[in-house]
Amino acid sequence: MKHDVFPLAIEEEAAVSSALYRDGMARLGGGVTIVTTDGPAGRVGFTATAVCSVTDKSPTLIVCINQSSSAFRAVTTNGVLAVNVLTAEQQPLADLFGGKTPMDQRFAAAAWTQGETAAPLLPDASASFECRITGHAEQGSHHVLFCSVVAVHMAEQFSGLVYFARRYHALAGT
Amino acid sequence: MKHDVFPLAIEEEAAVSSALYRDGMARLGGGVTIVTTDGPAGRVGFTATAVCSVTDKSPTLIVCINQSSSAFRAVTTNGVLAVNVLTAEQQPLADLFGGKTPMDQRFAAAAWTQGETAAPLLPDASASFECRITGHAEQGSHHVLFCSVVAVHMAEQFSGLVYFARRYHALAGT
Repeated sequence: MKHDVFPLAIEEEAAVSSALYRDGMARLGGGVTIVTTDGPAGRVGFTATAVCSVTDKSPTLIVCINQSSSAFRAVTTNGVLAVNVLTAEQQPLADLFGGKTPMDQRFAAAAWTQGETAAPLLPDASASFECRITGHAEQGSHHVLFCSVVAVHMAEQFSGLVYFARRYHALAGT
Repeated sequence: MKHDVFPLAIEEEAAVSSALYRDGMARLGGGVTIVTTDGPAGRVGFTATAVCSVTDKSPTLIVCINQSSSAFRAVTTNGVLAVNVLTAEQQPLADLFGGKTPMDQRFAAAAWTQGETAAPLLPDASASFECRITGHAEQGSHHVLFCSVVAVHMAEQFSGLVYFARRYHALAGT
């Protein structure tokens, strides 16, 4: 699907520093997920909090990703991804998939399954969204991926894991 | 700034139901904010969790908003907005700005200030991001607003307010 993007502002102006911006953003809590993909470009997974719902009419979410990362090439080439929303108990996986560990060792830490797409699904995740990537918009160092949700899987029991003030917080679910 | 958007998928397929998608999304925690604007289209504010950082190089965030809402017309006409990240203590404001209360009554509940833009700033918010809207991308019922951050304000003391599992959760900050 083509996304028409309408420019609004004309003038450029000095932006705030990256450090100040990051300090501010550390105060906005975000649910912790592991985004996965598999296909011609290989199996890749990474920890992400920059995931956001856009609309529930033709359910669509967005994932923001650094365009210089190997993950960016993998997800856009494979054309599919899964957003696995972590429980509080799955915090060790967030560290594993957020570091420099090789992909094979990351995936060896859990028994992944598969659904309607090739994207690996994490058992016992609070929720997993299987998506087809329908478009992406460039914004500086990052791309915003528009992801059409083709399947949702939910665990019977769940809890929440949020990153806020540069540390993890566990939330009660069911 | 123009956002080039590259379509990827060709085939359309049956999406999951809105209800199932919403049930899944209820399991992804989100920091609670009040997004405000002021200018030719008037002063408007609404509670939002669909806010996400895109990049810290030329700091940019996105806000997702229903295009049929009066708020959409206001923010895109005014061209500026502020994302006020709420503390746990400010939860009553989240309810007020998330309901049907007239705008004047909403804003009467706090002593708003102003920074570099006309967008109202909430005193004692954990952080406030003043932004110029540089573009928007349509996605079904909603638009994704690309917001260039021109100022960041931070309170000395802060805490966190997250919406997860269809209720608020307070998080310890400083």
